[in-house]
Amino acid sequence: MAIFGTHGRVYKPAQDVDLGSKSDETYLRANVKAPRVAGLLVKIFVWILESWIIGPIVVYILKRDNLIHQIISYAKFQEPPLFVPSHPWEGLKEQEISVLQPELTPHEQVQQAADCIPPSPEMVAGNPVSYFQRWTIKDFSKAYTSGETTPLMVAERFVAAVKASSGPHLQMSFFINYNVEDILRQATESTLRYERGKPISVLDGVPIAIKDEIDCKPYPTTGGTKWLHKLRPCISDACCVQHLRSCGAILVGKTNMHELGAGTSGINPHYGATRNPYDKSKVSGGSSSGSAAVVCAGLCPVALGVDGGGSVRMPAALCGVVGFKPTFGRVSHSGVLPLNWTVGMVGILAGTVEDAFIAYAALTGHLPSNEPSSQSRINFPLLTTTSTLSDVKLAKYSEWFNDCNEDVRSCCDKALDWLREQYGWKTVEVTVPEIEEMRLAHYLTIGSECSTSLAPHLENLNMSEVGWDVRLGLRIYGSFSSREYLNAQRLRNRHMQFHKEIFKSADVIVTPTTGVTAYTIKNDALKSGELDYINGAALIRYMIAGNFLGLPAVTIPVGYDKLGMPIGLQFIGQPWSEATLLHLAYAMQGLCKGTYRKPEVFYDLLKKE
Amino acid sequence: MAIFGTHGRVYKPAQDVDLGSKSDETYLRANVKAPRVAGLLVKIFVWILESWIIGPIVVYILKRDNLIHQIISYAKFQEPPLFVPSHPWEGLKEQEISVLQPELTPHEQVQQAADCIPPSPEMVAGNPVSYFQRWTIKDFSKAYTSGETTPLMVAERFVAAVKASSGPHLQMSFFINYNVEDILRQATESTLRYERGKPISVLDGVPIAIKDEIDCKPYPTTGGTKWLHKLRPCISDACCVQHLRSCGAILVGKTNMHELGAGTSGINPHYGATRNPYDKSKVSGGSSSGSAAVVCAGLCPVALGVDGGGSVRMPAALCGVVGFKPTFGRVSHSGVLPLNWTVGMVGILAGTVEDAFIAYAALTGHLPSNEPSSQSRINFPLLTTTSTLSDVKLAKYSEWFNDCNEDVRSCCDKALDWLREQYGWKTVEVTVPEIEEMRLAHYLTIGSECSTSLAPHLENLNMSEVGWDVRLGLRIYGSFSSREYLNAQRLRNRHMQFHKEIFKSADVIVTPTTGVTAYTIKNDALKSGELDYINGAALIRYMIAGNFLGLPAVTIPVGYDKLGMPIGLQFIGQPWSEATLLHLAYAMQGLCKGTYRKPEVFYDLLKKE
Repeated sequence: MAIFGTHGRVYKPAQDVDLGSKSDETYLRANVKAPRVAGLLVKIFVWILESWIIGPIVVYILKRDNLIHQIISYAKFQEPPLFVPSHPWEGLKEQEISVLQPELTPHEQVQQAADCIPPSPEMVAGNPVSYFQRWTIKDFSKAYTSGETTPLMVAERFVAAVKASSGPHLQMSFFINYNVEDILRQATESTLRYERGKPISVLDGVPIAIKDEIDCKPYPTTGGTKWLHKLRPCISDACCVQHLRSCGAILVGKTNMHELGAGTSGINPHYGATRNPYDKSKVSGGSSSGSAAVVCAGLCPVALGVDGGGSVRMPAALCGVVGFKPTFGRVSHSGVLPLNWTVGMVGILAGTVEDAFIAYAALTGHLPSNEPSSQSRINFPLLTTTSTLSDVKLAKYSEWFNDCNEDVRSCCDKALDWLREQYGWKTVEVTVPEIEEMRLAHYLTIGSECSTSLAPHLENLNMSEVGWDVRLGLRIYGSFSSREYLNAQRLRNRHMQFHKEIFKSADVIVTPTTGVTAYTIKNDALKSGELDYINGAALIRYMIAGNFLGLPAVTIPVGYDKLGMPIGLQFIGQPWSEATLLHLAYAMQGLCKGTYRKPEVFYDLLKKE
Repeated sequence: MAIFGTHGRVYKPAQDVDLGSKSDETYLRANVKAPRVAGLLVKIFVWILESWIIGPIVVYILKRDNLIHQIISYAKFQEPPLFVPSHPWEGLKEQEISVLQPELTPHEQVQQAADCIPPSPEMVAGNPVSYFQRWTIKDFSKAYTSGETTPLMVAERFVAAVKASSGPHLQMSFFINYNVEDILRQATESTLRYERGKPISVLDGVPIAIKDEIDCKPYPTTGGTKWLHKLRPCISDACCVQHLRSCGAILVGKTNMHELGAGTSGINPHYGATRNPYDKSKVSGGSSSGSAAVVCAGLCPVALGVDGGGSVRMPAALCGVVGFKPTFGRVSHSGVLPLNWTVGMVGILAGTVEDAFIAYAALTGHLPSNEPSSQSRINFPLLTTTSTLSDVKLAKYSEWFNDCNEDVRSCCDKALDWLREQYGWKTVEVTVPEIEEMRLAHYLTIGSECSTSLAPHLENLNMSEVGWDVRLGLRIYGSFSSREYLNAQRLRNRHMQFHKEIFKSADVIVTPTTGVTAYTIKNDALKSGELDYINGAALIRYMIAGNFLGLPAVTIPVGYDKLGMPIGLQFIGQPWSEATLLHLAYAMQGLCKGTYRKPEVFYDLLKKE
C-alpha cells in the first residue's frame, strides 16, 4: 500500500501525549512544497493535473511531498474517527454572564444585548473622540432616533460610496451584487418606522452586508463563481439573514469572496480582487474578503461571512476589524451554500466587539417561523460589562505563537503584556501538539466535502468557467480516498481530546490571528489567480481549531506592522463560551482603542454635513 | 468524472418520497453481477485484482456493474451526510414496560429480568415437555439450586460435547479456542458458590460462549484470522464480557467466525467451516457462525456475537435460534475488534427470547469499574409479561417481504397470520424505498471503515496468511474514495428520515430474517473460501437498517423449509425500543413453540443420567 517507500507515522495514544510546557512534542513547521505560481504557469500546472495518467501521478507526488501520506494516509492511530465537531451543551460556568430567557425573538435578544453595552465615555461627555473610531450600531440607532439623520439618507450615502469605491480609480471590488432600488426601499420603510417612533430594534436601518455564499433575496448566490447561481437558484433568505431582517437591518448586498471559498487571498478572477482599505495595493484576505473590507471601509458596522477554514477571521485580521466565529452549530447553516458539512459556520465581521455582540444576539434569537434547532433553544448567555473579568488564564504555545513575522509577533506579545499589566490576566505555557497534522487533516476534510458537494454541478460544467487556482484546488480535493478521510477524522478525535485537556488549565488559547499581514496583489494574479501556498499556510496557521474542532474564536485588531497594515490577536474558546470570548475581546479592545488608525479608503456614513 | 458513460442517479428530496402502500417507488432487486466462484478461480480472480494497472480497472468495472457508480459515486442528493447512527434517548412511550432504577449492577438487573419471566406452564405442572425445547438460563439455575446437578458437572459434559463435535466424524468447527482448565476452574468456583447457597445471579454457572471478535481472557482474539492476535494482543476482557463474568457466567471459549467478519457463510479456511447443527452438510451463516451454532446445538443457552451487517441475526435465523441486536451504542463496544466504527454492535444469540432478555439485562447494567457511557446511565426498560401487547402495528413492505424463497415467504406469512388471529396485531402496508441503495451504501461504509482500520496491519502482513475470499473483499474495500464514503452517508441520512416516518404509523417493521435458508457447503469452498454474492445478497437483504441506521432488531425461529432448515422472522424496532421488541418476540415465540424441532447435532447438558 505504501508504495514509493512512504511509511506512515505511528501516533502514540492521545492520552499519553504531554501537553505541558516541558513536553517533548516537536513543533512541525508547515512543510509547504509549492512555489508561488501565477499567470501562464498556473494554467500549465492545471493542464498537467487534469490530464490522464500523468495528472494522478503528479497529485500523488504533491500529496507525498506535502507529507499527507506520512501524516494521514498511511499513519497508524488508535483513536476512532470523530466526524462532526458538535458539542453538547454542558452548562459551562462563566463569570459575569447572565442567562437569557429561552426563545426570545432576535429583536428581543438584540435589545437585551444593546442594554448591557455601556455608552462610550467620550460620547457621554460630549467630547470629540480624539482617536479613530468606527460608528457603531448604537451610533446609527441614536442618530436615527434623534432625527439627526435617517436610514434613507444613510442608504443614499452608502450607494454613493459603493459607486465611488468601484470606480476606475479605486476598483475596490467590495460587492458582487447590490441593488440600489432594493436598498432604498428597505431604507424608506425603516425611515417610516422611525418617523412613527416605532423602530424594531437598534438594528433598524443599520446597513449590513452579506457574503455571497449566503442566500439573501433578491440576489443570486454566486459563491464567487460565474455559474453556481445558474444551477442553484436562491429561493429565500438564509436563516441568519431572516434573523437580521426581522430586526429591521437594511441588507445592502452581496460581498465579494474568494471563488467557492477555496482560497485565502480574496483575489477573484471574475469579480475582481477585493482590495484592502488600509492600502489598496494589498489583499484583503479571504475568503470573506468583501465582508471584511466593507466593515473596514465604514460602509457597514456589521457584515456576515462564513468561516470554514478561517474565512471570517483571516480577512478580519488583515483589514483591522473584529471577526467572530461561534461554536459549530450555534447559528443555523440553512441557506448557506453547502460547500462543506462539518467545518463551516456563519461568522460575524464587525467594526467593534459590541457590534459583533449585538449581531450575535440577533442570529441566536428564536424565530417562530423557523424550526428551532435544539441548539437554538439553549439560553443565550449575555455579556455584562459591569466589571472586567479577573483570574483569566490564557494558554499560549510559544513555539507556535512565535511562528509568524516579526511585526506580528512583537505586536501580539505587547498586547499580552497590556492584558497582564492592566487586568492581571495570566499566560499559561502549554504545548498544542500536531498542529501541522491538524491543518492537513482539515484540508483533506474540507476538500473532500467540497468536492463531493460540488461534484454533480462540476460534471456538467465547462471548466473554463472556473478560475485557474480553484480548478487546481478541486483537482486535489477530488483525489482523496475514504481511508484518508477516515484517518483525518481520527486526527480530529485526537485534537478534540488535546483541546479539552488544555481547557482544563486555561480559559482560552491565545494566538496571533495570522502569521503574516496583508501582502501585495501582483498583477499576474488578477486574471489567473495565484498559487501562493506559503502565504496561504501562514495565513491559516492559527485558524484550524476553530473549524476542525468547532470551537468559537474571535479576532481583535491590536496594532499595525511597519507598513501600516493591521494585525489581529485571536482568542480560541471552549465550546459554548461565546459570551466569555466576547467579554475578553471587549477588554482587549478597550486597551487598543487609542491606537486605531483610519483606513486609506473610508466612508463616514454619519458624518455631519 | 463520470467516465465510461456512467451517469449518477438523481434522488428526489427525502421528504418528497411517498412511503405509503400506493407509492410509485420501484423496488430494485439486488443486481449482483458476480457468479459463484470457488477453488482455483478465486485465486486467479484475486491475483488479477491485486495486480497493478489491470487490478484497478477490474475493480472499477465491478463497481460500475454492481451499480455503485450510478447509485452512490456519481449520484445527486440534497441531504447532508449523517455519519453515525446514534439516537438520543427520547423517552419512548411503550406499553407494559417498567423502568428500572438507574445504575443497577449487571447482576441486579439480571435478577429483575429473571423475576419478570413467568415459569413455563409445562414445567410448573411437572409434565414432560411434549415438544422440543432448549434448556433456559432459569433451567440451569434451578438445577444447580436444587442440587440436581452442579456447574462442574455441566462443564465436564460441555467439554466432552465440544470434543465430540470436533471429532473427525462431525467436524462442526464451533470453537476457535477453548481452554478446558479455565472452564473447569470457573465451574468449580461457581459450584462452591452454590454449595454456600450464594450464587451471584441466575447466570451463575451458566456456560456462555463469546465470538472470537470480542476480547475474553485468557484467549487471544483472532477475529477468525491466523495473524491479527499476533499484532493486537488481548489484554483484558471486553466490557460486555466483564458484565457477564460479574454475574457468575462460565465463559467457555471463543467461537468460530467468518474471517474478519467479512462474509456471511461462516466458512473459515483457517478454523474450518462452522456446520449447521440441523444438517451438518449446510452452512451455519455468518459471521457469528460459531455463536449461533453452539446455542443451536445446546452447548450454551446464550452466546455473544457482533452484528455489523446482520452477523448475529443471519446465523441465528439459519440455525433456528433467537438473534438480538440492540440499538447502536446501547452496549459498550470497548474490547471488540475495531473492524468498523459506525455500524457494528455486540449482539446476543440465545435459545429463547427469555434468555436473550436476561443476557441483555446483564450487558446493560452498570459496572462501577467501567466508565459509564451516557447511554448506560439511561434507565433500563424492563419487559413485563403480565399481558400480551395489544394494538400492535407491524409495517410490512410486501414487495420486499416477498423477495425470498418460497418456503421462507409462506412460513413468514403464516407467522403473521398467527399474530393476527391470536393477538389481533395488524399489518400495515408501507413502502421502504431505496433498499438496494442502502445495501450498497452500507457495504461501502463497512468496507471503507474495515479497510482503514486494518490498513496498518495489512501493510506488514504476508497476504498469503489471509483467506482468498477476504483478500478479494479487502481489495474492493480499499478502493473507495472520500466522495463515495460521503455520498453513502447522505443515503444514510435519507434512510433515517424514511424510517422515522414509517415508525409514525407502526411499532415495528416485520420481514423475513433472510431471503434463503442454510445452503450446502461445497467442498471447493473449504480451503479457498467461496465468492457467492447471490446467496450473500439474499442473506443480507433484510439486515441493513439494523446496522446502517442503528435500529434494534430481533429474529425468532418461526418454522422450517422443506429440507428441515430453520426460518427466521425479524422485527426491526425504533431506537431504544428493545423492551417492546423482546416483548413482541416473546409473544411470537409463544405461538411457535409447539413446532420447534431438535437439531441433528444436539447435546443435552442437563439430561438426567
